[in-house]
Amino acid sequence: MTTPKPMFSRVAILGIGLLGSSVARAIKRAHLAKHIAGHDRNKAYLKAAQSMHFADSLTDSASAAVKGADLVILATPVGAFGAIARAIAPYLKPGAIVTDVGSVKGAVIADVGPHLPKNVHFIPSHPIAGTERSGPDAGFAELFDGRWSILTPPKGAKKSAVATLKKFWEKLGSKVDIMDAKHHDLVLAVTSHVPHLIAYNIVGTADDLRNVTQGEVIKYSAGGFRDFTRIAASDPTMWRDVFLNNKDAVLEVLGRFSEDLHALQRQIRWGEGDALFALFTRTRAIRRSIVEAGQDSATVNFGRTPQPKPVKKKLAKKKR
Amino acid sequence: MTTPKPMFSRVAILGIGLLGSSVARAIKRAHLAKHIAGHDRNKAYLKAAQSMHFADSLTDSASAAVKGADLVILATPVGAFGAIARAIAPYLKPGAIVTDVGSVKGAVIADVGPHLPKNVHFIPSHPIAGTERSGPDAGFAELFDGRWSILTPPKGAKKSAVATLKKFWEKLGSKVDIMDAKHHDLVLAVTSHVPHLIAYNIVGTADDLRNVTQGEVIKYSAGGFRDFTRIAASDPTMWRDVFLNNKDAVLEVLGRFSEDLHALQRQIRWGEGDALFALFTRTRAIRRSIVEAGQDSATVNFGRTPQPKPVKKKLAKKKR
Repeated sequence: MTTPKPMFSRVAILGIGLLGSSVARAIKRAHLAKHIAGHDRNKAYLKAAQSMHFADSLTDSASAAVKGADLVILATPVGAFGAIARAIAPYLKPGAIVTDVGSVKGAVIADVGPHLPKNVHFIPSHPIAGTERSGPDAGFAELFDGRWSILTPPKGAKKSAVATLKKFWEKLGSKVDIMDAKHHDLVLAVTSHVPHLIAYNIVGTADDLRNVTQGEVIKYSAGGFRDFTRIAASDPTMWRDVFLNNKDAVLEVLGRFSEDLHALQRQIRWGEGDALFALFTRTRAIRRSIVEAGQDSATVNFGRTPQPKPVKKKLAKKKR
Repeated sequence: MTTPKPMFSRVAILGIGLLGSSVARAIKRAHLAKHIAGHDRNKAYLKAAQSMHFADSLTDSASAAVKGADLVILATPVGAFGAIARAIAPYLKPGAIVTDVGSVKGAVIADVGPHLPKNVHFIPSHPIAGTERSGPDAGFAELFDGRWSILTPPKGAKKSAVATLKKFWEKLGSKVDIMDAKHHDLVLAVTSHVPHLIAYNIVGTADDLRNVTQGEVIKYSAGGFRDFTRIAASDPTMWRDVFLNNKDAVLEVLGRFSEDLHALQRQIRWGEGDALFALFTRTRAIRRSIVEAGQDSATVNFGRTPQPKPVKKKLAKKKR
């Protein structure tokens, strides 16, 4: 058996944090590139990455990384994309595919598109996968397995380039959907951005209360609060940039959330138990659908220990 | 080695769902009772519990269960406590300890206290532990291990009875704090009730959007949304009762939450990136404290699979 011909001769990954280094590792796992060029401005990341071997070369120069690359992947926080696009534009190989892993797409198209030469294919991507950790040591090849990636090709994008990029994400383990950037940004505002904002907010509120100590918040966090702290521990720079770059959709969904929350608040104030019960029953069904769709673990309590043992196997001798 | 003398001759557990059946299993594990009497009004629960052997007797009569019991534990949704207290009062053994596992304490003291005879010790408890599942098959003996339980003894509670109950929870695996009911209700509004309300609300909001389909919400839920669906899948009756019975503290904390969220919304609208970054950095530290306090797992992504492998052990041969 011979190794199949890699999809790309050279892939440049600009930004080697959680996402960039995971893409690199997944490329290695699937043998999709002869050479992976990693770039970061963060010297500590470059140094750490040397011993991790997910890139074949590492450089602090974005333009050096992209030279000769068939595929260029922007994987820094999205706020830096415009400047990077400007910097690399003169060095891009004609016919190259330029993509990204940013969580917003409309702003990325507006920031990056105008800087790129006409002879490259710019097709934004968004792999919906991540963890609460940051940096090159946080990445892993399996990050995209079973998750969805969304491509948002701008009007006029070449079909064959879109097909190549789709195949690339599939080979990284991902399932792929294609939609327009505006719809992506609204969908992600609901499924990712506003949830993060709310999590950050409740953790902040709890931290600010004067009559409840931080020690109490921490000790009794297993009551539900701790669930929010995981995503509220996500990378601050990345998330600042998400909110600054998906303002309209975030504010729209946030408006709906607040409206619904006020209705709920009123139901509590007026003791409308049936309305509360109806909502709490409906939301339970959505959890079930997510687990059935393979997008979350069915394991109780996210698999945190201690875990219940299967009841059937637990029949102890009845004691009288 | 002989088994130590059990703390109680007979313990009555009224309500054998997740919490009640877990208490029963933890009592068995620690050999704390000669006899556990389980009661539930739900015939299906009683039938299912027969083969699980966490109770030595099972009955649909609360008064039958409490007869002769040294310890009586209310473990139904808190909305039923008043009626149960009225029903069992004439059958309580003089000197018995009556406690509960409810998530609110002020309302429980008001609802239960007046019905009980003077010759029993009423000392409310709240073990801060649970999962998103319900019913007798959802319970397990390890549920309380390493978690906190809060006792809220009313004024004049007998010190020796409080000490006995404290020892009881410790033997179930729990750490114990004692505070007044009003403070408990405020602390739990922050660490549990409002987080649940927000989770229920965002799941409801997402379900209601007309321009984002439910299928999209489910497929792309790994972006953060899925984290909220776990606690939004908690028992609807239990949570309805919590909100109806901790109205004041929930509305107070909710007011603070909304105020903070509006400030955040305004920062997004006006592009105040530094303020967002400052909050997102602060919240990260709280996650760290919770993990350090042993109140959540340090494992990435709550331990969901796939998991990153430790980087140090992953040094593959450098490929050129």
